[in-house]
Amino acid sequence: MAPRCGLRFFSAVISLQSSRMDKRVFYLGIDVGGTFTKVALIDRSGRIIAKEKVSSQGFSCKEAFLGSVRKCFADMLLKARVPAPSVRAIGIGLPGPVDPERGLVLSLTNIPGWKNFGLVDFLRRAFSIPVFIENDANAMALAEARKGAARGFSHALCLTLGTGVGGALIMDGRIYRGPMFMGGEVGHIPVVPDGPPCDCGGRGCLEQYAGNRAILAQASRLFGRPVALEDLSKMARKGHGRARKIWQDVGQRIGFAAAGVVNVFNPQVIVIGGGVSSAGSILIGAIRCALRRHAMRQLKGKVRIKRAQLGHDAGVLGAALLAKEKIEVPR
Amino acid sequence: MAPRCGLRFFSAVISLQSSRMDKRVFYLGIDVGGTFTKVALIDRSGRIIAKEKVSSQGFSCKEAFLGSVRKCFADMLLKARVPAPSVRAIGIGLPGPVDPERGLVLSLTNIPGWKNFGLVDFLRRAFSIPVFIENDANAMALAEARKGAARGFSHALCLTLGTGVGGALIMDGRIYRGPMFMGGEVGHIPVVPDGPPCDCGGRGCLEQYAGNRAILAQASRLFGRPVALEDLSKMARKGHGRARKIWQDVGQRIGFAAAGVVNVFNPQVIVIGGGVSSAGSILIGAIRCALRRHAMRQLKGKVRIKRAQLGHDAGVLGAALLAKEKIEVPR
Repeated sequence: MAPRCGLRFFSAVISLQSSRMDKRVFYLGIDVGGTFTKVALIDRSGRIIAKEKVSSQGFSCKEAFLGSVRKCFADMLLKARVPAPSVRAIGIGLPGPVDPERGLVLSLTNIPGWKNFGLVDFLRRAFSIPVFIENDANAMALAEARKGAARGFSHALCLTLGTGVGGALIMDGRIYRGPMFMGGEVGHIPVVPDGPPCDCGGRGCLEQYAGNRAILAQASRLFGRPVALEDLSKMARKGHGRARKIWQDVGQRIGFAAAGVVNVFNPQVIVIGGGVSSAGSILIGAIRCALRRHAMRQLKGKVRIKRAQLGHDAGVLGAALLAKEKIEVPR
Repeated sequence: MAPRCGLRFFSAVISLQSSRMDKRVFYLGIDVGGTFTKVALIDRSGRIIAKEKVSSQGFSCKEAFLGSVRKCFADMLLKARVPAPSVRAIGIGLPGPVDPERGLVLSLTNIPGWKNFGLVDFLRRAFSIPVFIENDANAMALAEARKGAARGFSHALCLTLGTGVGGALIMDGRIYRGPMFMGGEVGHIPVVPDGPPCDCGGRGCLEQYAGNRAILAQASRLFGRPVALEDLSKMARKGHGRARKIWQDVGQRIGFAAAGVVNVFNPQVIVIGGGVSSAGSILIGAIRCALRRHAMRQLKGKVRIKRAQLGHDAGVLGAALLAKEKIEVPR
């Protein structure tokens, strides 16, 4: 009950301060991950003014999830000295497809029991403010488009490399969701006709060659022993031939798939984020090389490849920015 | 001078008929091809009421092009008994990238001398009505979206198989042009990493496996002699093993590339048009098979594959519809 008491106490205090504080407006972002869930408060300028991180363990129980969010929220309000009524909306990013119109989580691999869960209604009832939902790769792309590497570009392709290969498209400055809310799944562009089956239901997807598991398996084959990703990046940076080859192959696959997106959708910038991107210039160099090889003449010289700038905050910032834009832009 | 005289005479006649005729509104479509140029008049419902076809020979000389269009226009006005002032705008489709905002033909492989040609200004000066320009694959897609196989779908991928593999995307009911006006170039999605160089500047593009030249070369290899495309289709329909294999391979490549587009853009329908599509069900079957293999679970059951319905009229109808929508929709 502690968070609720804290909230009540704080509300009582701030109610005395009246108008000056009330003019300030804030938005809450929640980035639900399979392992951790991040919560952040942003101000009207899109700056993170408080953030928290909690374990996602036990979130199959929705009340446990709600309790954790409530606690983070109350702690942040106290820490940032923000009155609860100044928080105008909540945005949530989730690691799976969502239906933003009906406010549903369509499916979630890492948290059982959330399939077709009406998360938006659930949180709206709890917090009594508007709630908006988004796929996490889309939320990250929104953050990079507004505050990061894709800022100033109307059309961007954002890739997040990790266990999965997340993809998102920014078109005319907005997230491209697609009519079935599965837009931007660049990690599932097929790159090998006879490739192995993928969890997505396809076969030979980019993710099977550029996802962490594939990279670790390849490293294990080449080195005859398991190698951690971070070590593989370090070895590559030091010029180790086999390690460099692994990252070059990964970059070539990413560039091959990205070239198709470039030729069809013409993004002005490709933003590469996530853990795998720690391989840095070797990976980016290989992506650039494959793009030069496969993109159309008029496009290959124009598209820029940049590393993501917002790191681990991208998801939660994007979720909060989503809420901010949903509330502010229509006005 | 004949067309001008015709126009003047006709204008004089219709000026006596006044208001009833003037309420009728028409649009002119021009589909400039490397071999033939088609011109058509549509009414407000989007129905073609007159059409003509002329050779594109000599069109490197822009005055020759203008003369041909003028003549077609005047002939059609007479034939359809339409007064010239009732034609409100002209739409033009061209077999190359265009800049619709500045009204420029960016490049044109088959007609020399049109690179960076300000075609819109040129025609506007000649006809004194608004002129709009579009890539021909986009124009065809617009026609299929409004009057053909993609009607009723908000998101469509349209492919036109021929010497080149033309591609276009309809998103939210509108042509997707991309920020560099090169959107929808599905024929240049790379499908083979080590494939041969393509005229577009890329390598291993779909067009190099599904374009007419590639199909004919493959047929020539398999049969030890040149085989016409139409014969190849006939043989396949009759169950000829090698002919079927060729079309199946082509369909597999198209489906492989299309699956990437499906996973990223989520079109609800894929429309296949152009000459190669005469191979019919064998080709469509192979495309469907590759899509089932490579598209994501949630999408593969939903995306429909349909043959184009408008045949040779698609380009010129789309050009005219473009003009119609530019004039009518903003109102």
